[in-house]
Amino acid sequence: MSGLFITFEGVDGVGKTTQVERLCGYVEGLGREVVVTREPGGTPLGAQLRRLLLEGDDVSPYAEALLFAADRAEHVAKVIRPALMRGAVVISDRYIDSSLAYQSGGRELTAEEVENLSMWATNDLLPARTYLLDMDPLAARQRLKHDADRMESTGVTFALRTRQAFLDLAKRDPGRFRVVDAAQSVEDIWAQIKQDSAQLLGPA
Amino acid sequence: MSGLFITFEGVDGVGKTTQVERLCGYVEGLGREVVVTREPGGTPLGAQLRRLLLEGDDVSPYAEALLFAADRAEHVAKVIRPALMRGAVVISDRYIDSSLAYQSGGRELTAEEVENLSMWATNDLLPARTYLLDMDPLAARQRLKHDADRMESTGVTFALRTRQAFLDLAKRDPGRFRVVDAAQSVEDIWAQIKQDSAQLLGPA
Repeated sequence: MSGLFITFEGVDGVGKTTQVERLCGYVEGLGREVVVTREPGGTPLGAQLRRLLLEGDDVSPYAEALLFAADRAEHVAKVIRPALMRGAVVISDRYIDSSLAYQSGGRELTAEEVENLSMWATNDLLPARTYLLDMDPLAARQRLKHDADRMESTGVTFALRTRQAFLDLAKRDPGRFRVVDAAQSVEDIWAQIKQDSAQLLGPA
Repeated sequence: MSGLFITFEGVDGVGKTTQVERLCGYVEGLGREVVVTREPGGTPLGAQLRRLLLEGDDVSPYAEALLFAADRAEHVAKVIRPALMRGAVVISDRYIDSSLAYQSGGRELTAEEVENLSMWATNDLLPARTYLLDMDPLAARQRLKHDADRMESTGVTFALRTRQAFLDLAKRDPGRFRVVDAAQSVEDIWAQIKQDSAQLLGPA
């Protein structure tokens, strides 16, 4: 595969969308095909699964993990892999690390089980680069306009644990991850990402 | 778990529904709680997945296998295991063997992969007894009112391969399976199933 697969990870509110858009524009400026996508919901099937996952109350942990894996399998088979085969740059807002950080913390499933499932579903496709936008989840939460409420205490515990899970994943695979301090300004975050991705993408 | 888990398998049109109903009535006659269910679609989530699976065109093989596994995980967690814990008799129209017979023949996936996925999704729950209703798929097809058309040649090949896959599964696990000749009359099929299940269920 001649393309380049880049993912953005981090808890809600850290500013992934903005950076995805910047990077998309930058890659287009280099004259390369770019495909921007996201999980869950990057395919027609995935959009329906996303609705099931977000609306569905009280789905069992195994079923939930399998639905996320089905979304990812379809996403890789129909969108990501064909684009990479064409030589495109694929930028995904969330991918496997979100499953590992969110689904395996404090549930019935181990991180190893979730990882094995996801690797099977994708035929072992990992990104060449993952930008982890990291910041205090409470500060991130305040950035989200649609959620001005104070976070209840279980929510705080969960958010702190999820942040730590992302950081642990980054530590385990420093070749793939770049941890970016998302408490910085949009411009400063982008400067770091641009510098790093420029090296991956080659000269403009 | 003090209950008893029984499944019916076989290609469409062999008469599973009729025998499921008979057995349900028989178990109720013994004064035991019985839960009749089916796959895919035995839960609210499963009903939505069933619709996705039946209506959805061209879902990738990995995503399809994961959706069936998600349906099964939810079915076991929400319906089958709780009923067995209560001591009920659970009768399911299709279960793991349908995945093995249908999903792993001639697709990208191996039977071993599909089996591992399903065993993981169910926490290794297998039925105590599986009745495989077996007959020539062409004859079975003619029984289905809603499909009077002649089968096209690829359909014939697929049906014959599926029948053989079921028979191979039965051969591999003779302790769990009972193969019943479904070309017999409804009464003769039921007589065999009643005799066998009576032994499993204990005295009336």
